[in-house]
Amino acid sequence: MTDIRMIEAAAARLAGHVRRTPLLSSPFLEEIAGRRLFVKAECLQHTGSFKFRGGWSAVSALDPETRARGVIAFSSGNHAQGVALAAKLHGVPAVIVMPSDAPALKIANTRGFGAEVVLYDRATGDRDAIGAQLAAERGLTLIKPFDEPQVIAGQGTTGLEIAEQAAEAGVTQADVLVPCGGGGLTSGIALALEARAPGLRARPAEPAGFDDATRSLGSGQIERNPAMTGSICDAIVTPQPGNITFPILKRLCGPGIVVTDDEALHAMALAFLRLKIVVEPGGAVALAAALFHPEQVEGAAVIAVTSGGNVDPAMFCTALERYAG
Amino acid sequence: MTDIRMIEAAAARLAGHVRRTPLLSSPFLEEIAGRRLFVKAECLQHTGSFKFRGGWSAVSALDPETRARGVIAFSSGNHAQGVALAAKLHGVPAVIVMPSDAPALKIANTRGFGAEVVLYDRATGDRDAIGAQLAAERGLTLIKPFDEPQVIAGQGTTGLEIAEQAAEAGVTQADVLVPCGGGGLTSGIALALEARAPGLRARPAEPAGFDDATRSLGSGQIERNPAMTGSICDAIVTPQPGNITFPILKRLCGPGIVVTDDEALHAMALAFLRLKIVVEPGGAVALAAALFHPEQVEGAAVIAVTSGGNVDPAMFCTALERYAG
Repeated sequence: MTDIRMIEAAAARLAGHVRRTPLLSSPFLEEIAGRRLFVKAECLQHTGSFKFRGGWSAVSALDPETRARGVIAFSSGNHAQGVALAAKLHGVPAVIVMPSDAPALKIANTRGFGAEVVLYDRATGDRDAIGAQLAAERGLTLIKPFDEPQVIAGQGTTGLEIAEQAAEAGVTQADVLVPCGGGGLTSGIALALEARAPGLRARPAEPAGFDDATRSLGSGQIERNPAMTGSICDAIVTPQPGNITFPILKRLCGPGIVVTDDEALHAMALAFLRLKIVVEPGGAVALAAALFHPEQVEGAAVIAVTSGGNVDPAMFCTALERYAG
Repeated sequence: MTDIRMIEAAAARLAGHVRRTPLLSSPFLEEIAGRRLFVKAECLQHTGSFKFRGGWSAVSALDPETRARGVIAFSSGNHAQGVALAAKLHGVPAVIVMPSDAPALKIANTRGFGAEVVLYDRATGDRDAIGAQLAAERGLTLIKPFDEPQVIAGQGTTGLEIAEQAAEAGVTQADVLVPCGGGGLTSGIALALEARAPGLRARPAEPAGFDDATRSLGSGQIERNPAMTGSICDAIVTPQPGNITFPILKRLCGPGIVVTDDEALHAMALAFLRLKIVVEPGGAVALAAALFHPEQVEGAAVIAVTSGGNVDPAMFCTALERYAG
């Protein structure tokens, strides 16, 4: 299971390859939040999301012979791009299995990062069977998006940086709000903070209606979302917390915070105006929680992770038209 | 006159206050540029542009008694915000003199950074007389936008970071393209690179029709722009290179590169898609030069500074609609 030694080993493998993303701030945002506010701009990571960390960690952790045969992932989003670029930079093949109705831009981007994209029909195809057959034929290793210890270790390197950067900013006590889908990033950050900055507490942030982690933390057991579609925060919509990630969340995290889609759009517009970064809806939920639910945050400072920036131009302009006018 | 010792002294005063902005890259942009391409994302600086560096450098260089009386600047743009925030963080007053028809958002932002904004009528008022009277009455020190050695020294700290970050990336030979208005940023970077990374060469980038620095470098003497309006790259439109900055440009810089407004918009859209940063038109001209005029660039690597991100949402969405569709 992932622990601080695994995270530090992942950090050593990532050194020189991952970007140490900046911790940003703005007096205008602090006025809204009513406290010191820092933004860990992980949307500036390679491939536009934190997923590159987990992808690199998992690919680099394989023994060379296994790695040389290649890796496979199921994803139409940020995980696909993270694994694809990590594999490319290691000089090994990556196969990404995507539904044939995935946005053309996402397919093109994943190919642009060097992956072979295998499409399947969502209605008639069996994704797992296709993947299993490809993996068996070619000896590919499956890289799961979050319920995989080396992926969690890679995402946890974000937490090591937060611990260092918060200390540099003189912050020793704060809630660290993290956009939460399956819980890979949140659990990794929680483990890193436990060891390196025990005054910082990780908390998941989620979109309304897809608050499985928040409800699971409330009940103490894994709860499922009633649906898988209907939020613009697609990057962090998953059926339920992972079997590996949830026990970590339960042991270490504070309560979840839930935001509306409109609050996520508003946070995107403020990040544009005040921080000059591009954040996707799912990546903006933690910033939205810090800005628009300050009564649920504890302490004199808060740190919000903006986990990704892969947003369609039309959606981005909708956010600006509504909230940056 | 500004030299490397003044730049390093400015860096010491700026330490802990300025953001060390990241050096970003994307394989998609490198494919377009046809060489290794790095982007110094100075739009992520405090106040959304490099101007905070020069403002802080100038304010912090004043003797305490002079500084306590306050500072004054003439600007409706990035320099105003940089000086305002630098003064606020030093706990001293800042007066910013702006035309009364300046955009409401810019006036509000400058006030938001703690400055007193004094408006004058562009048609009937005498800006310099108003400023001189205020300065005399209150003992304020004028902070000029570029033709001022301590401002150039502050902007030059960008060059110290580029020298370090290029070395970390293994780049020892490259053109460094810099959006150029009055030449404060370009000359400061050129001085820093001369001392710390002599294989890197600064070159100004400018919008078509406002290419005073490019023409001045060509003729060897200061040339003026025929007009002061008509480009969307308003942040870098100035009448001519400065009397202090031009001799530095002439001694150290390679030839200028000129781009169209549409190329600047295209570069903004690609920075959104591939780097997840917000760049204003004037701040995007160097990236546009690297992407769309590769035949004018020398060497296997190029570094483009994106100098600011203070762009109206409508202009930003125009860029996305045209070039990120």
